[in-house]
Amino acid sequence: IIDRDPVQIAISTGGASPVLARLLRTRLETLIPAAYGRMAEVMGSFREQVQARFTGINQRRRFWEDILHGPIAEMMLAGQEKAAIESLEYALEHNVASHQGEVYLVGAGPGDPDLLTFRAVRLMQQAEVVLYDRLVAPAILEMVRRDADLIYVGKQKNNHAMPQEEINALLVKLAKEGKRVLRLKGGDPFIFGRGGEEIDTLSEEGVAFQIVPGITAAAGCASYAGIPLTHRDYAQSCVFITGHLKDGSVELNWDALIHPHQTVVVYMGLTGIKSLSAGLIGRGLSPDKPAALVSKGTTREQEVFVTTIGELPKVVEENNISAPTLIIIGEVVTLHGKLSWFKPALESHPGTK
Amino acid sequence: IIDRDPVQIAISTGGASPVLARLLRTRLETLIPAAYGRMAEVMGSFREQVQARFTGINQRRRFWEDILHGPIAEMMLAGQEKAAIESLEYALEHNVASHQGEVYLVGAGPGDPDLLTFRAVRLMQQAEVVLYDRLVAPAILEMVRRDADLIYVGKQKNNHAMPQEEINALLVKLAKEGKRVLRLKGGDPFIFGRGGEEIDTLSEEGVAFQIVPGITAAAGCASYAGIPLTHRDYAQSCVFITGHLKDGSVELNWDALIHPHQTVVVYMGLTGIKSLSAGLIGRGLSPDKPAALVSKGTTREQEVFVTTIGELPKVVEENNISAPTLIIIGEVVTLHGKLSWFKPALESHPGTK
Repeated sequence: IIDRDPVQIAISTGGASPVLARLLRTRLETLIPAAYGRMAEVMGSFREQVQARFTGINQRRRFWEDILHGPIAEMMLAGQEKAAIESLEYALEHNVASHQGEVYLVGAGPGDPDLLTFRAVRLMQQAEVVLYDRLVAPAILEMVRRDADLIYVGKQKNNHAMPQEEINALLVKLAKEGKRVLRLKGGDPFIFGRGGEEIDTLSEEGVAFQIVPGITAAAGCASYAGIPLTHRDYAQSCVFITGHLKDGSVELNWDALIHPHQTVVVYMGLTGIKSLSAGLIGRGLSPDKPAALVSKGTTREQEVFVTTIGELPKVVEENNISAPTLIIIGEVVTLHGKLSWFKPALESHPGTK
Repeated sequence: IIDRDPVQIAISTGGASPVLARLLRTRLETLIPAAYGRMAEVMGSFREQVQARFTGINQRRRFWEDILHGPIAEMMLAGQEKAAIESLEYALEHNVASHQGEVYLVGAGPGDPDLLTFRAVRLMQQAEVVLYDRLVAPAILEMVRRDADLIYVGKQKNNHAMPQEEINALLVKLAKEGKRVLRLKGGDPFIFGRGGEEIDTLSEEGVAFQIVPGITAAAGCASYAGIPLTHRDYAQSCVFITGHLKDGSVELNWDALIHPHQTVVVYMGLTGIKSLSAGLIGRGLSPDKPAALVSKGTTREQEVFVTTIGELPKVVEENNISAPTLIIIGEVVTLHGKLSWFKPALESHPGTK
């Protein structure tokens, strides 16, 4: 049935085959949303109505395709059954289900494709056009529907391949052409993702959209580096800031950053690392305050450097650390030695020790 | 092959069947991690070695089961192929692959099961024992492996069904018995999840663990309520605080909360809502500062109330708002009217308009 048929995979494994087959079967079962079964039932109950409405098989197929790829199917999968049935009845009566363009603003998470959400992957499979930028990992792009058009819209610091206004306008244009458009963002679209600005334009232009949160870099890097962002003994709050502001400066709410019992997470902080380090120390924070750099967090290239805010610039320079890198400042950083578990470049035999 | 066989589902749908079958096929293809194919190849290459080592079919099956459910399979799926092969060779030689207990500390996200990550679901399928608390939605628990033991460990405010120390000890005990233990947390384990404390004990006791980030309530509620946490025009940073401290007080870093151009997100803030509102105003924040309450965010029962910090206590009382509810404070809240898209109780026909 499918390219990567579990049975075929199992047959090719020799001795391991029955075990692997059973494992895959269990997993597949879970991976099909239970709502599909119910969706099939509901669709079945419309069988006669659809046959009466459309005499040709191609017409019927086209109708169901439009339904299954559009908001009515999404409503069913979201458990909004009543609304879905009403919309289906309405669509059948007026034959207007098709050709609604819409935009999915989707967070792709910090890098590891395993951290994509189910909703993200489903929409990646529905989209006809995908706009993505530099922060989206290649392994994630591979999960996009194969025949979708991919448009790279850049985002290098101070050197956007496509200005934000053009991205906003392109989203509107494609949706108005009736396309299902995926705007794929690294991390979470509403945490330093400029998602608000893009959706703003869509809303003004009356384009339908939905927003799917992603694992933000702070959460991804914290978990994979073994650094809790909050901890009852060390930090009762955490603050996320960006080192890369609209006008290019590093003018921060410094006072907000020097509170005790608080973890500070800096996104895109490498360029301004010297100002950041000096600024915090100049406002009274001890140069010995623990700080960590998490480079390429959650990916196989992840590296974690534990240091102090005074030493941050030196560590960046000496280790040639490049973006994407997240900076975590606070006592919680000291827990890394104890809580670290993700070791992509394993040399020992953890499965056997 | 599987309970919810796409072909069987398709057959039952009448006119929709070929279309639904094709849709499901495409989706299933995506849902099988590509790494499974490679894992099958690697396992196939060990065929003769395994047959030479274990003469009985049951022995061989047991060996592969241990491998497939353990850290070696996880290494393969995480792309750590070299380490996986070395571990497999070692395991085969010493026959020591099995019976390693470990703990998966997994973030279950804010409520919508569609926001689970692939890694979370995979580990939910591997676990033999699951410890969960009040914040994990029933729809999410249903995705846990069917024959797993479920242990409710509570967490009602000031009235834990099981004290934190007992949870920590239970995790250690179960893992030392050789069990694969899932500790399932609402949201993200490292953002007000006390994940650090639980892992601390595991680390001290030498128990293997891994940590999987989840969509934290702030990100989930922000996306589903159409409230960007950062926005270049309104907020360049965001701070997460909890209204529920270790000693039960609401003693916050008040000064850190009253900065302009910053979004404040309050977790578990309902009980202390009066102190919070009065405290912020008393320290100079305008009573008219916009604030939103997102109740049961991302679920079908989601409700969003947009108000001001002065009116927060009144709105909570008048609408009988109960936990889980997230509070978002800042100018970004005013964008809700424009950017809101998730309407679980749909009355119109959005699929057809």
